[in-house]
Amino acid sequence: MESVKHIEIKEGMSVKDLVKEMNKCGVIGAGRIGKASEIFAEMLNKKCKIYFGLAGAMVPGGMRNILKDMILDGYIDVLVTTGANLTHDLAEALGFQHIKGESNVNDAELNKKGFDRVFDSYMQNKAYEKMEDLFNEHLSEIENKRLSGSEFLRLLGSWIKDKNSILRVCYEKNIPIYCPALMDSGIGLMLWGLLAKGKKFDILLFDDLKEIMNSVWESKVNGVFYIGGGVPKNFIQQAMQFSPNMAEYGIQITMDRPEWGGSSGAELKEGISWGKMKPKGKFVDVKCDATIALPLIYSYIKGIKRK
Amino acid sequence: MESVKHIEIKEGMSVKDLVKEMNKCGVIGAGRIGKASEIFAEMLNKKCKIYFGLAGAMVPGGMRNILKDMILDGYIDVLVTTGANLTHDLAEALGFQHIKGESNVNDAELNKKGFDRVFDSYMQNKAYEKMEDLFNEHLSEIENKRLSGSEFLRLLGSWIKDKNSILRVCYEKNIPIYCPALMDSGIGLMLWGLLAKGKKFDILLFDDLKEIMNSVWESKVNGVFYIGGGVPKNFIQQAMQFSPNMAEYGIQITMDRPEWGGSSGAELKEGISWGKMKPKGKFVDVKCDATIALPLIYSYIKGIKRK
Amino acid sequence: MESVKHIEIKEGMSVKDLVKEMNKCGVIGAGRIGKASEIFAEMLNKKCKIYFGLAGAMVPGGMRNILKDMILDGYIDVLVTTGANLTHDLAEALGFQHIKGESNVNDAELNKKGFDRVFDSYMQNKAYEKMEDLFNEHLSEIENKRLSGSEFLRLLGSWIKDKNSILRVCYEKNIPIYCPALMDSGIGLMLWGLLAKGKKFDILLFDDLKEIMNSVWESKVNGVFYIGGGVPKNFIQQAMQFSPNMAEYGIQITMDRPEWGGSSGAELKEGISWGKMKPKGKFVDVKCDATIALPLIYSYIKGIKRK
Amino acid sequence: MESVKHIEIKEGMSVKDLVKEMNKCGVIGAGRIGKASEIFAEMLNKKCKIYFGLAGAMVPGGMRNILKDMILDGYIDVLVTTGANLTHDLAEALGFQHIKGESNVNDAELNKKGFDRVFDSYMQNKAYEKMEDLFNEHLSEIENKRLSGSEFLRLLGSWIKDKNSILRVCYEKNIPIYCPALMDSGIGLMLWGLLAKGKKFDILLFDDLKEIMNSVWESKVNGVFYIGGGVPKNFIQQAMQFSPNMAEYGIQITMDRPEWGGSSGAELKEGISWGKMKPKGKFVDVKCDATIALPLIYSYIKGIKRK
Repeated sequence: MESVKHIEIKEGMSVKDLVKEMNKCGVIGAGRIGKASEIFAEMLNKKCKIYFGLAGAMVPGGMRNILKDMILDGYIDVLVTTGANLTHDLAEALGFQHIKGESNVNDAELNKKGFDRVFDSYMQNKAYEKMEDLFNEHLSEIENKRLSGSEFLRLLGSWIKDKNSILRVCYEKNIPIYCPALMDSGIGLMLWGLLAKGKKFDILLFDDLKEIMNSVWESKVNGVFYIGGGVPKNFIQQAMQFSPNMAEYGIQITMDRPEWGGSSGAELKEGISWGKMKPKGKFVDVKCDATIALPLIYSYIKGIKRK
Repeated sequence: MESVKHIEIKEGMSVKDLVKEMNKCGVIGAGRIGKASEIFAEMLNKKCKIYFGLAGAMVPGGMRNILKDMILDGYIDVLVTTGANLTHDLAEALGFQHIKGESNVNDAELNKKGFDRVFDSYMQNKAYEKMEDLFNEHLSEIENKRLSGSEFLRLLGSWIKDKNSILRVCYEKNIPIYCPALMDSGIGLMLWGLLAKGKKFDILLFDDLKEIMNSVWESKVNGVFYIGGGVPKNFIQQAMQFSPNMAEYGIQITMDRPEWGGSSGAELKEGISWGKMKPKGKFVDVKCDATIALPLIYSYIKGIKRK
Repeated sequence: MESVKHIEIKEGMSVKDLVKEMNKCGVIGAGRIGKASEIFAEMLNKKCKIYFGLAGAMVPGGMRNILKDMILDGYIDVLVTTGANLTHDLAEALGFQHIKGESNVNDAELNKKGFDRVFDSYMQNKAYEKMEDLFNEHLSEIENKRLSGSEFLRLLGSWIKDKNSILRVCYEKNIPIYCPALMDSGIGLMLWGLLAKGKKFDILLFDDLKEIMNSVWESKVNGVFYIGGGVPKNFIQQAMQFSPNMAEYGIQITMDRPEWGGSSGAELKEGISWGKMKPKGKFVDVKCDATIALPLIYSYIKGIKRK
Repeated sequence: MESVKHIEIKEGMSVKDLVKEMNKCGVIGAGRIGKASEIFAEMLNKKCKIYFGLAGAMVPGGMRNILKDMILDGYIDVLVTTGANLTHDLAEALGFQHIKGESNVNDAELNKKGFDRVFDSYMQNKAYEKMEDLFNEHLSEIENKRLSGSEFLRLLGSWIKDKNSILRVCYEKNIPIYCPALMDSGIGLMLWGLLAKGKKFDILLFDDLKEIMNSVWESKVNGVFYIGGGVPKNFIQQAMQFSPNMAEYGIQITMDRPEWGGSSGAELKEGISWGKMKPKGKFVDVKCDATIALPLIYSYIKGIKRK
């Protein structure tokens, strides 16, 4: 039996050393940050394919650089995300930085001023116009094509010049992006706008399902890393379920609770019953705002060279 | 200024009278149940088109009959939901009732016994086999077709005989079902199974976006009712955004919090900044497990004849 | 193995029948309301001493009548509560009803208008003046006395005329009230005011500890019912720990989570490790706003005659 | 208007630099850690009296060293806490370190083995015996005395030899500790045990109220720092309310939500309506597990010399 070592802070301490302290302490919240960091380090040091599920307001919440760097570092092999994160990434790529605001605000006035609120962060509504321009400019690349969602998102990444864009770096590094509910986003609306004008192309989202199923099937050792729940988590979990190689490692950062029964709040161990997670895998549920937890975990593993 | 009237309970009291008491009390949790019930009654008494967003484990959680009855009563005009709710509805329609279980359980043993856990409710894994049979039986109805998601779900509803099925009653009452992330579900897996075997058909989920945009555009008075957040909420909200007729009524039952910035926990009033909700609309955020709140609200309005 | 029966709503249904439906459904949130109601019924039908821990804003939240009725019905044998609930009860007894307000409000303006905010309910600040008058009027009854906290609260109850007052009905029915952090409340401030003016009396809160320890020790069958956590829960739990008759029944209604390690969010079963709860007792953790859960549970058991 | 700067992580980065990045990012969770750190730095750099309210399982959660160091650094002027934190501090001082455990465990077996569980941390039950020895040994120092709670806790601190003890360092540095619900704790039980054996002494907790009221009254600039809510927060807030010098700075780290109306989850700004907080004060509500947030904030200000 191991005793709880109380965290010790030294002036000028590095984040890495703080996370080590958290790992020694080993319980409740701080301990889980430590454990998640250790599991992530192990995933990176082994030949493990890392499926990264990204939900929530991570771009409006200031996490864009970290995500971009994680992709450049080779720490993400497959990205599954919401349309919202990609749309906000695209907005920034087109020059529309998010604005620091307040949640306790008159929303009708914000609307008049052209700001869309995401809790205490705002996006300028006119970002949509620039998106439209971009799509019109590159229309010929999709017109009369049949594309899977990930093929389309790869194309979209190639249209972006901003080197800090998640879409752009995924394109450069050849990391597939799956966005199962692509229609449910500003990017989806752009595509709908073209279809509504009579342009022809098919985005076949069922092809994405085929791709991710094959991806999991072919990989021997799989690990999952979830920011928030939603469709990204469930889509990866589902791919694990019907593969011989269910997830051996798992990190989940979420504030959702298990008691209501939804997938977003479900503990990772629930996945064992479904055959999505290995009974003897290494899993941790981190109950923390991801904008706090992710910088800590990433600081801990920053610098590891992937095998 | 109105004072808080304390809730008074009488022996044998009806749920309707209890909700009236909650409405008089008017604050904190109980008051919001009362307010939501009043708003829903107003929606039903006016010529308002009701968009119902359904996320979370509502079928494993015992809400299937209520949802089915709400559709039969004409209280839902458009249903947007997760693949999971439809898959669990289908499993029950095929004879696989959910089992009362426990959350604090050995998941590896459950897996061996063939049970998939949803918090403290279990589904038998062999339900998937029966689903496969159903899809094989009706293959000819989709082979070589181009279908929108809602067209496919209408077909699926027609294959079901169980009169308590949500899919079935939507088919019968001609209520469209949109499931933007259809691939992300057991039903999606059935379709993928057929595609993987070389069968040909296209499910064009972008057509669903077109349909719901037109639906909102054509309707003068719109109301939204969200159980949980996720894609169903966001997909409806998005449709409201680009219509001249943004939502005038809104009820949201969720345990998610606004502080993390995600759409699922965002207060309805945030939608005003985006142009999704009318600045002077009637909205209420109910912070309660939906398996408790929905039966209360439904009991209150049960019996109202729609205009 | 038992299957999940979906809740069925009938027009005009009684709350009691709704809770029965919830009990049949048996899982997630609704099921726990059903289970709690069953456990409470069993507590009332057996010779069980019921310790009721009351925290949170139950009086500003509209629960005063229910609590008063539960005491009159003989459903509460010992009340442990926060000073805030007693202070708000006293304010109402002196004619200061709470006001329905809003949470999204300018607090500086409220302050100028003399309102103290409790989320979306307001109390008039001048209630404190009336309290002061009451204490001055009855000063002779406490001056130069040594009183336990519960003795003082009994006296306070006798000063109140309002028949809807929790303090008053506890006095009438001879139900002891323990308020371990009595200083931490408006009532505590009144006593401090007298002490500050040089009046002499001792309120010996350690005598309350002695009283409750004896109470638990003498009773053969004990049950606990917690609204919220805080000191009231912990104080009762502690009394159970050092008695041969640890709690056999337990109901806890709270929105706090276990993950942070605090007593307020701890599952009741954690109490088994401490020797506070019987390993084979009947316990349920209800995760719901108490202003919604309590009216449901009380409606279910209303009418039971205690043994 | 300021834009959201995305957090940038560098290999080997210090925690201080990470928190600076969080402050630049400025929104949602990370931004609030940054803002809290800035506010705390300002409190330390001004002649501000710092009232620290400590609830929750901070000692079992590995925060004992940080708290002890904050007191030694002079960063806490007045400590208000729960009996549980002091009892767990005392247990460690007597040689009973907490044990890393699991929450998903058989509590009846833990009980047989003599472990008391605090979520996923255990305390040995026999710590109580050592506490009893300590109290017996020093009985003469309290017998036949009238002591305020803080006077007693000062004595208790003087009995402890462990230099890492919170109680001990408060004694050494002459920092008053208020524990309004002292009876509601293991330490309270020790005192009760002596009283039950017929020993005579009075602990007059109302004297603590007098002391803290005077303390706030005499200080010109006041700041509050709350870990969790409960009695510690409310007791400090109450002292601010009746002083001319309401709090000018405020930091609150809690996972409780405002919607249920309880003081623990109430936003700091609610205190403005009560006259507890200055309308133009600097406040921040940090929604994060305190075992994660506190090490970050403390790392940021570590090294500041107090005025």
